[in-house]
Amino acid sequence: MGTIGELGEFALIARLTRRLAPGPDVRLGPGDDAAVIAAPDGRVVATTDLLVEGRHFRLDWSGPYDIGRKAAAQNLADVVAMGARPTALLVGFAAPPGTDSDWAERLYDGLADECRAAGASVAGGDVVAAPAVTLAVTALGDLGGAAPLTRSGARPGDVVAVRGRLGHAAAGLALLTGGRAGPAELIAAHRRPEPPYRAGEEARSHGATALLDVSDGLVQDLGHIADASGVRIEVESSRVPVPEILGPDGLRHALTGGEDHAFAATFPPDTVPPPSWTVIGTVAEGAGVVVDGREPPTGAWDHFPT
Amino acid sequence: MGTIGELGEFALIARLTRRLAPGPDVRLGPGDDAAVIAAPDGRVVATTDLLVEGRHFRLDWSGPYDIGRKAAAQNLADVVAMGARPTALLVGFAAPPGTDSDWAERLYDGLADECRAAGASVAGGDVVAAPAVTLAVTALGDLGGAAPLTRSGARPGDVVAVRGRLGHAAAGLALLTGGRAGPAELIAAHRRPEPPYRAGEEARSHGATALLDVSDGLVQDLGHIADASGVRIEVESSRVPVPEILGPDGLRHALTGGEDHAFAATFPPDTVPPPSWTVIGTVAEGAGVVVDGREPPTGAWDHFPT
Repeated sequence: MGTIGELGEFALIARLTRRLAPGPDVRLGPGDDAAVIAAPDGRVVATTDLLVEGRHFRLDWSGPYDIGRKAAAQNLADVVAMGARPTALLVGFAAPPGTDSDWAERLYDGLADECRAAGASVAGGDVVAAPAVTLAVTALGDLGGAAPLTRSGARPGDVVAVRGRLGHAAAGLALLTGGRAGPAELIAAHRRPEPPYRAGEEARSHGATALLDVSDGLVQDLGHIADASGVRIEVESSRVPVPEILGPDGLRHALTGGEDHAFAATFPPDTVPPPSWTVIGTVAEGAGVVVDGREPPTGAWDHFPT
Repeated sequence: MGTIGELGEFALIARLTRRLAPGPDVRLGPGDDAAVIAAPDGRVVATTDLLVEGRHFRLDWSGPYDIGRKAAAQNLADVVAMGARPTALLVGFAAPPGTDSDWAERLYDGLADECRAAGASVAGGDVVAAPAVTLAVTALGDLGGAAPLTRSGARPGDVVAVRGRLGHAAAGLALLTGGRAGPAELIAAHRRPEPPYRAGEEARSHGATALLDVSDGLVQDLGHIADASGVRIEVESSRVPVPEILGPDGLRHALTGGEDHAFAATFPPDTVPPPSWTVIGTVAEGAGVVVDGREPPTGAWDHFPT
């Protein structure tokens, strides 16, 4: 059905908006100067990410539907990582005028479906032309009267636990980079993370002292908790979930691979985390992250590699 | 002090964050998975825009400080256009790794200063590498217990009024496109709009039935009110403010030029709008926008010109 340049801005917006079904938290959806979204707590949790073609996704490695799901997932996971319930997404979409409008519509289907999986919906956004496909996703959420679960609450003696897949997306990316097409499960994990959105609620109900989503890699992200809390985090590698499918580099992928959007939390001493969580270590006095008592492998994701 | 690629992601974020002073509405600022912002109304107004180098700004025509102010202004104006008080901005910033870090810091100074002018502050964001400088700005706001001022409330008999400069940014852009450097006031208007942020409060206190910010051009934006409200808007060109500085094309610039982020509102019959507003027409039964009883000049801003 032609390109988005042929459609023009307003027809394209109308077509994309039809893919979206505003949920109950959306008081006023697309079509005005701004959206209005429920924030019953009296505070709103808000986070934004920019995703750029060639850097955060490759058009030859991922289809539009998966790109949409992934872009939504990584922001919704950030809201959940504050212990909040996702309510709405705002999406800025930039693409070359020659982009097929069907492609754009499938992207929005992916955004809408991932929102639905997290209990949210797309409330508004912006559409512009640009040389490269770019997505700017803002996610909002509600704390429901509770304090936000930050990175700064870990205390010596706390237990460290994770929830969700680790290393799968990184292993899938390594396969694609090496020109391989399987195992399919790992390729799929790279294309579309599946954050366990209930993790925030689970962590909160078990008294979590800190929570974050693992986007840069487990060791690096635990480092953020260590820094913000002024503690040392000690990981036992034998307790880190490394399924066989991750292959010989499995532990490295699990420790350093980002983009699965698993969650890592600290819980007070002697807490038994929910069954879906895996205890992987403890919090101690000091600074930094150690794995089996040693400096961990590096492999940090820096968005500006030199 | 070098490029942002040399600095690396985390050092760059630290440096940019230092330019920002979170305001009283920011409960939790940059540094965690998400920000937490006050939303005392129990709803939050939210809008997002993507701005791309070469399309929304030119690096040879505008410096980083003005680009930052303009990017913030256009989103803050959207919040005000809902009758809300701006509370916070989230900023996604993409740039080539070779970008000078001073340049990026001046951009953030501009963002912070424009927020301050509107009573808001930057609460968080994202920094990534990309081939072109790209800004994704999300603005949030609070309705303070009032209903949002949408585009759909205009009724036949209402008066139509505007607040703020019209056509100045367009005239400035025309000068730059023609290789001219003055009048300085018009060039400055293109580089940095000055939305009258009190317009929302003024419109509300005088019972406005519809409100929007003029971003695409007065006629086109009044068309959005006409469409959403199911009415016809009749403009008298002799009442449209066209200062002499706009030159021989002044009326055309005022009717079709966007990006000044003036505000247009409708008020109930016989309302005398606040003194800072100028009545330019009336609302009638029907559809569309007419100027002096005729089809208005076109000159719509389409983000995907064919």
